[in-house]
Amino acid sequence: MSKPVVVRRVELPPRDAVTALEQYGVSTVHEAQGRIGLLAPYMRPIYPGAAIAGHAVTVSLPPGDNLMIHVAVEVCTPGSILVVAPTSPSTDGYFGELLATSLRAHGVKGLIIDAGVRDVRPLTEMKFPVWSRAVSSQGTVKATLGSVNVPIVCAGAAVEPGDVIVADDDGVVVVKRTDAVTVAGASKQRIDKEAGTRQRLAKGELGLDLYGLRAKLKELGLDYQ
Amino acid sequence: MSKPVVVRRVELPPRDAVTALEQYGVSTVHEAQGRIGLLAPYMRPIYPGAAIAGHAVTVSLPPGDNLMIHVAVEVCTPGSILVVAPTSPSTDGYFGELLATSLRAHGVKGLIIDAGVRDVRPLTEMKFPVWSRAVSSQGTVKATLGSVNVPIVCAGAAVEPGDVIVADDDGVVVVKRTDAVTVAGASKQRIDKEAGTRQRLAKGELGLDLYGLRAKLKELGLDYQ
Amino acid sequence: MSKPVVVRRVELPPRDAVTALEQYGVSTVHEAQGRIGLLAPYMRPIYPGAAIAGHAVTVSLPPGDNLMIHVAVEVCTPGSILVVAPTSPSTDGYFGELLATSLRAHGVKGLIIDAGVRDVRPLTEMKFPVWSRAVSSQGTVKATLGSVNVPIVCAGAAVEPGDVIVADDDGVVVVKRTDAVTVAGASKQRIDKEAGTRQRLAKGELGLDLYGLRAKLKELGLDYQ
Amino acid sequence: MSKPVVVRRVELPPRDAVTALEQYGVSTVHEAQGRIGLLAPYMRPIYPGAAIAGHAVTVSLPPGDNLMIHVAVEVCTPGSILVVAPTSPSTDGYFGELLATSLRAHGVKGLIIDAGVRDVRPLTEMKFPVWSRAVSSQGTVKATLGSVNVPIVCAGAAVEPGDVIVADDDGVVVVKRTDAVTVAGASKQRIDKEAGTRQRLAKGELGLDLYGLRAKLKELGLDYQ
Amino acid sequence: MSKPVVVRRVELPPRDAVTALEQYGVSTVHEAQGRIGLLAPYMRPIYPGAAIAGHAVTVSLPPGDNLMIHVAVEVCTPGSILVVAPTSPSTDGYFGELLATSLRAHGVKGLIIDAGVRDVRPLTEMKFPVWSRAVSSQGTVKATLGSVNVPIVCAGAAVEPGDVIVADDDGVVVVKRTDAVTVAGASKQRIDKEAGTRQRLAKGELGLDLYGLRAKLKELGLDYQ
Amino acid sequence: MSKPVVVRRVELPPRDAVTALEQYGVSTVHEAQGRIGLLAPYMRPIYPGAAIAGHAVTVSLPPGDNLMIHVAVEVCTPGSILVVAPTSPSTDGYFGELLATSLRAHGVKGLIIDAGVRDVRPLTEMKFPVWSRAVSSQGTVKATLGSVNVPIVCAGAAVEPGDVIVADDDGVVVVKRTDAVTVAGASKQRIDKEAGTRQRLAKGELGLDLYGLRAKLKELGLDYQ
Repeated sequence: MSKPVVVRRVELPPRDAVTALEQYGVSTVHEAQGRIGLLAPYMRPIYPGAAIAGHAVTVSLPPGDNLMIHVAVEVCTPGSILVVAPTSPSTDGYFGELLATSLRAHGVKGLIIDAGVRDVRPLTEMKFPVWSRAVSSQGTVKATLGSVNVPIVCAGAAVEPGDVIVADDDGVVVVKRTDAVTVAGASKQRIDKEAGTRQRLAKGELGLDLYGLRAKLKELGLDYQ
Repeated sequence: MSKPVVVRRVELPPRDAVTALEQYGVSTVHEAQGRIGLLAPYMRPIYPGAAIAGHAVTVSLPPGDNLMIHVAVEVCTPGSILVVAPTSPSTDGYFGELLATSLRAHGVKGLIIDAGVRDVRPLTEMKFPVWSRAVSSQGTVKATLGSVNVPIVCAGAAVEPGDVIVADDDGVVVVKRTDAVTVAGASKQRIDKEAGTRQRLAKGELGLDLYGLRAKLKELGLDYQ
Repeated sequence: MSKPVVVRRVELPPRDAVTALEQYGVSTVHEAQGRIGLLAPYMRPIYPGAAIAGHAVTVSLPPGDNLMIHVAVEVCTPGSILVVAPTSPSTDGYFGELLATSLRAHGVKGLIIDAGVRDVRPLTEMKFPVWSRAVSSQGTVKATLGSVNVPIVCAGAAVEPGDVIVADDDGVVVVKRTDAVTVAGASKQRIDKEAGTRQRLAKGELGLDLYGLRAKLKELGLDYQ
Repeated sequence: MSKPVVVRRVELPPRDAVTALEQYGVSTVHEAQGRIGLLAPYMRPIYPGAAIAGHAVTVSLPPGDNLMIHVAVEVCTPGSILVVAPTSPSTDGYFGELLATSLRAHGVKGLIIDAGVRDVRPLTEMKFPVWSRAVSSQGTVKATLGSVNVPIVCAGAAVEPGDVIVADDDGVVVVKRTDAVTVAGASKQRIDKEAGTRQRLAKGELGLDLYGLRAKLKELGLDYQ
Repeated sequence: MSKPVVVRRVELPPRDAVTALEQYGVSTVHEAQGRIGLLAPYMRPIYPGAAIAGHAVTVSLPPGDNLMIHVAVEVCTPGSILVVAPTSPSTDGYFGELLATSLRAHGVKGLIIDAGVRDVRPLTEMKFPVWSRAVSSQGTVKATLGSVNVPIVCAGAAVEPGDVIVADDDGVVVVKRTDAVTVAGASKQRIDKEAGTRQRLAKGELGLDLYGLRAKLKELGLDYQ
Repeated sequence: MSKPVVVRRVELPPRDAVTALEQYGVSTVHEAQGRIGLLAPYMRPIYPGAAIAGHAVTVSLPPGDNLMIHVAVEVCTPGSILVVAPTSPSTDGYFGELLATSLRAHGVKGLIIDAGVRDVRPLTEMKFPVWSRAVSSQGTVKATLGSVNVPIVCAGAAVEPGDVIVADDDGVVVVKRTDAVTVAGASKQRIDKEAGTRQRLAKGELGLDLYGLRAKLKELGLDYQ
């Protein structure tokens, strides 16, 4: 049964793991944790080049109503990333430069919203990164409750409060809080391994040889003409 | 009953109001006039940073046919913004650099088209701003009539000739010609008020307190845990 | 009947025609060949400003599986453009910076993929151009065969190996290999003719007069008010 | 400037014209009035075979909030068709069997809603026709005002209170109140003319001959091989 | 970290609650549990009139690969509903009449799949209900592992193995296993209450009066003209 | 280079193969020919239960213009299926009951159109089957040429004149004319084989055993818990 609720405290992921994951980026982290946790590719950054990681403060709110974002600000802490999902599909502009100013004052690193955002020019100028499904000026009301820091589904991915959010030009991925350290380790391994691969590919070596794929092709019966 | 027609003269909105609305931008104007008049968020600028306002010269044309854009150029005047809607959904490229050259020669400030546009690189270089639903080279014919300066629906919004169009990185909004002065005034008030709000939020004050939302949350029965 | 196959050799289009088509760009080439061959407008470049032409190496592969891209690298030659279409709609990230490194080592000029791409920041930095329907980190497997250098449909356009691909900020167009020289010629004519048109339009002359459209409007019965 | 308002009385279209338009159906009426007024094709009936016409009672409401539908019931009269458009895109289920029961008690003939509807089985059983963009159980709140009997844009078409709505398996079309008689006449002419055409086509006569298109094809230069 | 796994046993919801929820239907259950748990409205039944409830056996599988559906059959038990979500968006036809025959032999009541289904005529004839996002013949391979009976996100809703799935003409809703009894109770209350409401509305009483909305409208300042 | 052309004569597929393919249906034929040739799943029949096969008469036409359908009627022969693709995306209603009457008089079995159709009720009553991407009354003009019986891409599939079209409740598939006999044979084999499979599955035997998948699962390392 669902009732509006605000959970003030969430357990945080280890700070070092978050810092590491931010460095590795979305594609590496997504692969390193077994190709899970990716938000839908319609989630795009409002300007190129931003790359952040932080712990999720989740918001579930009704369509066309941003009351709960104002509520969520109070429970954010330095390093938070606000993750907002309306209870039904929406492209309205729940968020703009004033809310970004407020979030920044509380140390929030960015916003992930499965809906619209506005004031993209001021947001770009103040370098407050947002990943959204739409840019829209459409204003919202403050009439109906939702919840803060409950499990949500955002852009097709399940997110729990305190999970690590990693976002960059490739999109957004969520890492379970309890997996953060392991995934950071696996990401590092992947990065290290790729360095060698990159060098060999740059010299013209083929992936077919490098990854040992020729045997598989033969087994599958690929016909070369 | 519908017959193709070109209305040569439209009443213009007050010039000062247009200048003011251009300054305030789409999100502020949209809010100031009561959250109406926004075009659908799929209308995106072809390059970032453009921000214009002007009076609408409207064009209704058949899908895949840009004859009426050529007709419309003749009735444009300095400060016009061309607002084009095909009679059925289309992403074809009705407009490119040559038409932009022509429009610019007649003082037109930009194009809003619920369809496609092409030559985006030359258009970007000559800084002719376009908001469109698509970028597409798909060519069009010049075979069938439509109308110029009649009421149209463009990207979900009703637009009448002479209405004010405001467009920037947030999208496109239409202001009724007769509302232009009032909406400009309300926009200014909003901007002025937000300056104070911004300062307080930047210092860490919460929107919950600033907007007096705590009483409402209590009344609605929000459960803090 | 369909069986996985790799065709190693394809006939190439004349080099001069390819060089010319690259210069003329997508919109001109598309018009010059009679408004055919355009890929769907959802195919967008991952960064602005890239403009390439080359001969198509085609790849048909199963959804979520990039094995055949690795196979295709081996049959690419300097000047190739890889054209990839999954056998059912997909936004997965079949391609990233490592594959781009490999393709570049073999002289490939870019990628056209009716699916997703990842590593957009590194790809942008190394200036390896990609036109895709999505940006997505979603990883793929290497389990099932497809075909290389067979006729495919990519983003709604039929592409045969050895056809010329032209891609820029306006999108992507395909020119049949055997039409390349003729289309290059027609493109040049069009460019030359437009130079004069541009000058006259810039001086304020109307397209209605320049293109002789007034008689047609009269014949169609356009009603001026 | 926009403020919530309910207009109690609207001028009605002539009853005979409405009855006639209902008989002619959407495609004929749409053609007869010059191919205007059609709502977007995503508006589909919840069951096949319904065919109605009536005068529009319009509702503009916020996303996810059906308060104004309850308000609108009071101003409906026998023969009304409720036309509902949220102020931003939505697929929520604003309407179900209880509201249909209420509307039917007041003589309302059906619902056109640019959003979702639920209880489609009971609605089908009670033969209350609905054209909608979605079927969805998603519940709505009753928190925020909108307007009743103001001009709206519904599914891309401008609708004014008192306009005639015609809806059947082909979709939904709006006829301006003041055009109703003329369009009914033009529809009748079209129906009458088509009867003869149908007979001739059924005997194998070609449209090319019947509509006299061969001269046009020759003029346009069609090449038969 | 994600590794393919099959969980053989899941805890089942109380049988009586499932039976009750099946009777109440999707819209009532969705409202009764606080407007949560609804799958996206693009999930439509392949034929009208089916209405089922059962416990979820969940399947996460790669795009274009139905190997794990075959695996899942073995862990289904009488009353199961198979809930299938590919790891990236897909419309392929993972399921047809042979798999339905197999599932039916093991007592499975139906299929919920966030992808495509084929053989809709035979499935309709054998009355095996399916809710899907698409109908598609597109065949799939059996090459790559996924998981059975792990938490998944299906069409935007989080589903855990053993949760109750309710599906009918309105769509699909998921009820947490541990909420099943409470939600069944709340659904019954809702149904009972609506019976009285229906009678009063049928007599012409207004929802405005019945739900006591007039005071709210006055407080919100609705302007009647 | 593209010029409008009508090819009067096309080579036809063997009649027996067409008859056989009609019987086997879309899903079987699609599988039997190696999972190729399927049109996009948005192509849906306007009423359930239709199942046809025939040789393609192809039409390429401009958006919003149905002149070439009238031209195509003349080159249709008994057993033809008209396959229509606009040169850019469109949902207009190019086709209705009068054209169906005309086509039927010439023995045409049905229509496949990557656009809209209207008069769905009369078409259903006269049992003229249509597969389309939309139902729409939107009228079209007769102003611009296209081509008849040239290779086209329809809903993502390449179709040549004389190819076999198979269409039923599962969608539409195209079989190359020269593959018709082989594919009919492979379809028959598939149908025969499935009869035995169906019986065994109906008795409760698992696909895992029947298809010998357990070894593969072990090899892939599936973890049962």
